[in-house]
Amino acid sequence: MTEKQWVYSFDEVKGANTQEWIFKLGNKGAQLAEMTESKLPVPQGFTITTEACNQFYDEGKKWPSGLEKQVKEKLEKLEKQMKKELGGKESPLFLSVRSGSYVSMPGMMDTVLNLGMNDETVEIFAKKTGNERAAYDSYRRFITMFGDVVMEVKHALFEEILDAAKEAKGVKIDTDLSAEDLKALIPKYKELVKKEAGEDFPQDPWEQLKLSINAVFNSWNVPRAIAYRRINNLRKDAGTGVNVQAMVFGNMGETSGTGVSFTRNPANGTKEHYGEFLINAQGEDVVAGIRTPRPVDELKEVLPEVYKELLEIYETLEKHYKDLQDFEFTIEDKKLYLLQTRNGKRTAQAAIKIAVDMEKEKLLTKEEAILKVKPAQLDQLLHKQLDEVAKKKEEAITKGLPASPGAAVGKAVFTAEKAKELFEANSKEKLILVRTETSPEDIEGMHAAQGILTARGGMTSHAAVVARGMGKCCVAGAGDITVNEKEGFFTVGELKVNDGDWLSIDGSTGEVFEGQIPLVEPTLSGDFETLMGWADSFRTMKVKTNADTPKDAKIALEFGAEGIGLVRTEHMFFEGARIKAVREMILSENLEGRKNALAKLLPFQKEDFSGIFEVMDKLPVIIRLLDPPLHEFLPHEDKDIEELASEMGVSVEKLKQTAASLHEFNPMLGFRGCRLGMVYPEINEMQATAIFQAALEQKEKGVTPNPWIEVPLVGNVKEFLKIKEIIKKAAVDTGAEGKIDYKIGTMVEVPRAALTADKLAPEVEFLSFGTNDLTQMTCGFSRDDAAKFLKPYVEDLDVYKRDPFQSIDQEGVGLLMEICVEKARKANPKIEIGICGEHGGDPESVEFCHRIGLNDVSCSPFRVPIARLAAAQAAIKDKKK
Amino acid sequence: MTEKQWVYSFDEVKGANTQEWIFKLGNKGAQLAEMTESKLPVPQGFTITTEACNQFYDEGKKWPSGLEKQVKEKLEKLEKQMKKELGGKESPLFLSVRSGSYVSMPGMMDTVLNLGMNDETVEIFAKKTGNERAAYDSYRRFITMFGDVVMEVKHALFEEILDAAKEAKGVKIDTDLSAEDLKALIPKYKELVKKEAGEDFPQDPWEQLKLSINAVFNSWNVPRAIAYRRINNLRKDAGTGVNVQAMVFGNMGETSGTGVSFTRNPANGTKEHYGEFLINAQGEDVVAGIRTPRPVDELKEVLPEVYKELLEIYETLEKHYKDLQDFEFTIEDKKLYLLQTRNGKRTAQAAIKIAVDMEKEKLLTKEEAILKVKPAQLDQLLHKQLDEVAKKKEEAITKGLPASPGAAVGKAVFTAEKAKELFEANSKEKLILVRTETSPEDIEGMHAAQGILTARGGMTSHAAVVARGMGKCCVAGAGDITVNEKEGFFTVGELKVNDGDWLSIDGSTGEVFEGQIPLVEPTLSGDFETLMGWADSFRTMKVKTNADTPKDAKIALEFGAEGIGLVRTEHMFFEGARIKAVREMILSENLEGRKNALAKLLPFQKEDFSGIFEVMDKLPVIIRLLDPPLHEFLPHEDKDIEELASEMGVSVEKLKQTAASLHEFNPMLGFRGCRLGMVYPEINEMQATAIFQAALEQKEKGVTPNPWIEVPLVGNVKEFLKIKEIIKKAAVDTGAEGKIDYKIGTMVEVPRAALTADKLAPEVEFLSFGTNDLTQMTCGFSRDDAAKFLKPYVEDLDVYKRDPFQSIDQEGVGLLMEICVEKARKANPKIEIGICGEHGGDPESVEFCHRIGLNDVSCSPFRVPIARLAAAQAAIKDKKK
Repeated sequence: MTEKQWVYSFDEVKGANTQEWIFKLGNKGAQLAEMTESKLPVPQGFTITTEACNQFYDEGKKWPSGLEKQVKEKLEKLEKQMKKELGGKESPLFLSVRSGSYVSMPGMMDTVLNLGMNDETVEIFAKKTGNERAAYDSYRRFITMFGDVVMEVKHALFEEILDAAKEAKGVKIDTDLSAEDLKALIPKYKELVKKEAGEDFPQDPWEQLKLSINAVFNSWNVPRAIAYRRINNLRKDAGTGVNVQAMVFGNMGETSGTGVSFTRNPANGTKEHYGEFLINAQGEDVVAGIRTPRPVDELKEVLPEVYKELLEIYETLEKHYKDLQDFEFTIEDKKLYLLQTRNGKRTAQAAIKIAVDMEKEKLLTKEEAILKVKPAQLDQLLHKQLDEVAKKKEEAITKGLPASPGAAVGKAVFTAEKAKELFEANSKEKLILVRTETSPEDIEGMHAAQGILTARGGMTSHAAVVARGMGKCCVAGAGDITVNEKEGFFTVGELKVNDGDWLSIDGSTGEVFEGQIPLVEPTLSGDFETLMGWADSFRTMKVKTNADTPKDAKIALEFGAEGIGLVRTEHMFFEGARIKAVREMILSENLEGRKNALAKLLPFQKEDFSGIFEVMDKLPVIIRLLDPPLHEFLPHEDKDIEELASEMGVSVEKLKQTAASLHEFNPMLGFRGCRLGMVYPEINEMQATAIFQAALEQKEKGVTPNPWIEVPLVGNVKEFLKIKEIIKKAAVDTGAEGKIDYKIGTMVEVPRAALTADKLAPEVEFLSFGTNDLTQMTCGFSRDDAAKFLKPYVEDLDVYKRDPFQSIDQEGVGLLMEICVEKARKANPKIEIGICGEHGGDPESVEFCHRIGLNDVSCSPFRVPIARLAAAQAAIKDKKK
Repeated sequence: MTEKQWVYSFDEVKGANTQEWIFKLGNKGAQLAEMTESKLPVPQGFTITTEACNQFYDEGKKWPSGLEKQVKEKLEKLEKQMKKELGGKESPLFLSVRSGSYVSMPGMMDTVLNLGMNDETVEIFAKKTGNERAAYDSYRRFITMFGDVVMEVKHALFEEILDAAKEAKGVKIDTDLSAEDLKALIPKYKELVKKEAGEDFPQDPWEQLKLSINAVFNSWNVPRAIAYRRINNLRKDAGTGVNVQAMVFGNMGETSGTGVSFTRNPANGTKEHYGEFLINAQGEDVVAGIRTPRPVDELKEVLPEVYKELLEIYETLEKHYKDLQDFEFTIEDKKLYLLQTRNGKRTAQAAIKIAVDMEKEKLLTKEEAILKVKPAQLDQLLHKQLDEVAKKKEEAITKGLPASPGAAVGKAVFTAEKAKELFEANSKEKLILVRTETSPEDIEGMHAAQGILTARGGMTSHAAVVARGMGKCCVAGAGDITVNEKEGFFTVGELKVNDGDWLSIDGSTGEVFEGQIPLVEPTLSGDFETLMGWADSFRTMKVKTNADTPKDAKIALEFGAEGIGLVRTEHMFFEGARIKAVREMILSENLEGRKNALAKLLPFQKEDFSGIFEVMDKLPVIIRLLDPPLHEFLPHEDKDIEELASEMGVSVEKLKQTAASLHEFNPMLGFRGCRLGMVYPEINEMQATAIFQAALEQKEKGVTPNPWIEVPLVGNVKEFLKIKEIIKKAAVDTGAEGKIDYKIGTMVEVPRAALTADKLAPEVEFLSFGTNDLTQMTCGFSRDDAAKFLKPYVEDLDVYKRDPFQSIDQEGVGLLMEICVEKARKANPKIEIGICGEHGGDPESVEFCHRIGLNDVSCSPFRVPIARLAAAQAAIKDKKK
């Protein structure tokens, strides 16, 4: 068996800028190889693969077999290239040892510079360069870093010694210390190491290298790195590469220096040099903030030749990478070196401007430009945000799920009634409604509030779904808080937040802050329109919206929706006089009573649909028939029950009995959806009648309504057939048959429906995946209860990469969807298949939907642009294959 | 296009005793053809197919095109065969018109005899036969039947006229009426018809025939027929055949007669002639009960020649059909005719005796004998039953689900506490525990009671599952009753049943009676052992049992269980000191507290397992780790909470808070199963330790324990891997590794697990379908809430043929199981796959499990024989293919 190659020299990998190599070498290692191939001035070296790192962990933190031999070989090669030797008496080689995973995790893992320095080599270095100061500056930096990273001696303790030296000399910055001053630090540092680590600082450079490589491996799993990966949804099994590179020294005096720069402005996208440098310094000085770095364009005055070279680098990098680059450079005695480059992080605004500009500059095609913008980032542009600067100064008191994007600042209020009251008294009142969880009864309170904070419930809890529909910010499932609605306060740890206290919540991150953080308004540029236009020209899936009111429908149209993928009719049942009729229906003991109550509801429903048809003229509108279990429409509190009883003229006991008889152990799996229509066909009959009457009414006005009537919770084709018959009959009875262009279809949310799609498909005109419920049933999670285990599943236990309610669980739920699509298309090639449910606004899920061949996705109005962009990217990626 | 053949003469179908023909002609029609082919003395005729009946309904109750022509053709053929003519002046033909679906639905549909009689033909008949009395007897019978069946004139009104005639003459029975008397009835009957139906009784025989055929078609959908099909799980789309047959007359005087007989005793299986006859009578007289029929063997004295013929018929029929036959015969002037035969219904005891005897008589092979006994029938043999005779006299006050077989008689009691109290005071007290639903807290009350009656919950509700486990009778989900536990009564309609009132419940039928119905003890014959022995020799699937205690395990062993397929460890958590430790664990706020509490539980668990291993020596025992959500272990009533709080030394508030924080909206989909072990690994660690310690303990005593440890509710292989690690570690830590032969596997109850079986299979040693939960999630039904719609779905709406919690929904859940088995076996050919959950005891489901290639099925102890027989039948059927 030949040994696995664990180590690659920068110059032996060709075409390293691919996912495969990036995953193998880490992004830094891959880009060092890539730049080497592109003849950019990179100090040579080699990369230990991420596979070696993983193997290191698999073997209980031991080097995999062969690694030591290979490191030695590559080191020898490097020594030959550099004509220097690690620990060499003639011409010692110094090394940097840096981490680097498949994506940059800035500052999360460890770095050691100036490796190879010891009591002997420092002297040789001083002699050879004639720069004793630089030599000892490098040595003391090395001991500091090595001590900190490898030997676990606190960095601050070294700083104390350094500060004492500066104080003794009466200077403020490092560069004012002389060679002698620096040399005098060395024994003190070594003493510190011995005292703190219980061991001598190692003089053997090979020993130094081995320990540093270990330290980098180990830094993959320090808590901050784990947390960073979790927060950023990075792979936990990636491992880090280790980049060992010949040192170049920015601390060789006034003709040396170090800097970092972006090729364009990452905040707003302007094409300008955005970066800073320090003369006579090493990398960490730029970040440390003791000396103030200077804007990168000032290099023109300091080292004009180097600046000229740098200008070329900007162009070369962008031409080569076709993206905003974020790079580090070092100048060693007027010679410019690139130490790393990576695609620069940027704001949404910058991302769009850069993509559009680069297309104009012919750096990118339109397709490429579209792929440069992360769809999820668009959220930033569409909602108010907490001011980033102000936010950074505060510490979040807790973090929940980012359930509905945007931000809100307001006074805590703990009941929907009170929120409504305060809002009615003063419509400028800013409120945050805080609840353990919300229920349909809280709708008006949610309307009145700027944002919603709940202690329970997931991304698809009631609060989250309703808030997204309203375009209102929501942080859900903040499990650390305990809400006492009755007394009007919540606690989180020791902290108690009372009714009326100010809160700021960030629905894009899930953060919750005490007090008021300033809000920043969203802005949409012309570049945004340009890019979205391109996106629309490439995507093949339609993007629809979930909207229950004409108002929401209008917003979604403005965001580019091409129809409504889901009108939830139950939301229409809750307001004012309607809820009374709904309750009357529920309390009826016979068909006649139910029909009477439904007759009262009919005009309301008709009006609802009429308004939506008017707004959506010509575009398809998928209307889902009544879905929730009937008990959701009854009050739960004793007080409300008494009130209702007297209103309805029934006894409290009878009302409680009805409520009790409707009670369900698992309402998600209960008497709801089409099951209601199967047992009480008159409900769906009324709804279908209202739809057709509304359509006919609009048609008279010159509108072209296009209703698609959707039967919910179908698990068996026989259910669908029965309800279809009711709808068809209503079409005939209302006179809509032949006049109104309508379709009948069903949601696929019960696994059984997906499994038996071959039976369903010939009978339906469209299918729409209700992936919220489909996920609940396929994975066996209740979305309202799952937080307790799903949070650790995603964050700590690595069971799911992402919360399956946020992004489709492709391995499980997705497989079921694929089975369904395949069976359905085979049985009915004309069938239209879409997805509603919030996954329709998640870019990864949208891409998945494209891949399995859906016709459209539907999401809340504010996510429509995200879905449009994601759908375009999916189509472009697909074409590439 | 050639016309469909809607009508078949008896003599043109060969090999009619096949499923296909039986379905096409109905069983009666097929057997008439079969008997004709076998040269049995059958009056000739023809059968209109069930397809014609279905087409009749499809066309809005009109005859399908071609039917009339074909009926005429076949009629002509019959006329030629018989040398008679319908309505003929010379030699009139008379007909019987009888219904007949694919299975017998005795008395549910309509029959018309003597068709063709009118004012003219009756006279010719009288002359030709020289029997005027028989002629008019036949005519008045025909008017009665035709009037009743076709013209909707109530049968009783004809009887009134007949009774008046008998009274006037001072005689008691029909046969004492003279020809004149009978003749005098005719005008009165015709008058009655005219008055009641508003139309004349039709004299045209062809008209009579058409109307009678219509009447039979229509009788397919009369309410009693619909109800019968529903109750007996018969196909609703089968339709009825119509058999038109030349009449033979049993009412031709003392040398004529009619009778019915079984070829053996259908009550106990004894080989004897079991039937009765009437001289000078037509079919309906035997059933009507006015004259008392005589035992069939008495025919020897009355008509010895005919009796001899009949003896041959017994033999011929059994030899031909290889089964108990139930046949009708008519004697027309000493000539014996067979009018129909069918397989006879029989008791379980008879079924077994007949099967075993027929094998001895070489009528059947062992395989055939096994196939003759319906597995579900065995229930009758294993449990006490309500005395059939006494039961028939009572009317059930309500009917619930037959949740656990057997019967019980006892006084109604409404709380578990009271049941326990009464039982402790007097262990002979007979009680029926009546609850809206039961919960784990009711266990001791269930123990104390003879049977359980609940208003809510399905076949797999808590009450049902626990009762079956205990072998105790249970009627669940009796939705019509409203239980008031607090005040101790239940109502059903107007009826109120109080605490202490006697009830009799039948868990095999779901019936509930007021008062005490005598109980009959079960008996197991030697024939039973013989048959089960044969079954065991043919079946390929193992049969295991679900048992939580050594006691249950012992019972199951006696019934032939080959291992335990499911030990539910949570039941072990509820008793005495254990529940206290469980609650202590739940209330602990940290790992240490939980570990302390678990340490207290460990010895109990160890003892539980130890006892089971001892009983099950060498046989595999699948132990499922803790499954239910933790809130199930906390009390719910205020009083109990207060008690517990003081016991635990925590505040009531804190306890309520904990309970509230554990509350779940959909506990079925909540924080349970392996999810508990993922978040609190110490729970599974304790359980695994207890299992291994118990196994080691038993091993020292010379027992060979074979634990299979099962991880519940796995949806993702990563869950399994984590828990597997915990178990493996416990094996090593306890020293069981290498000493105890154990396996680790998982339940498949989450659809995602089935879908990703290719990922799971390489990691597990066995899979076990938990089809209760799998059905809940795949179909999206909560078993506790589904009654409201599942009952109409099965009974009225035809969405499912059988309750999917009783019999596997093969189209949906079954498909998912197939996908799982296929993927799993491909990924791990050595894997063992079984099923636990109550479907394991349902014969249809067992057959399905065999078909998809499971290794074993597991069911409650009392269903083990059923599963053994069903598994044998499945294997035999499979071999036949």
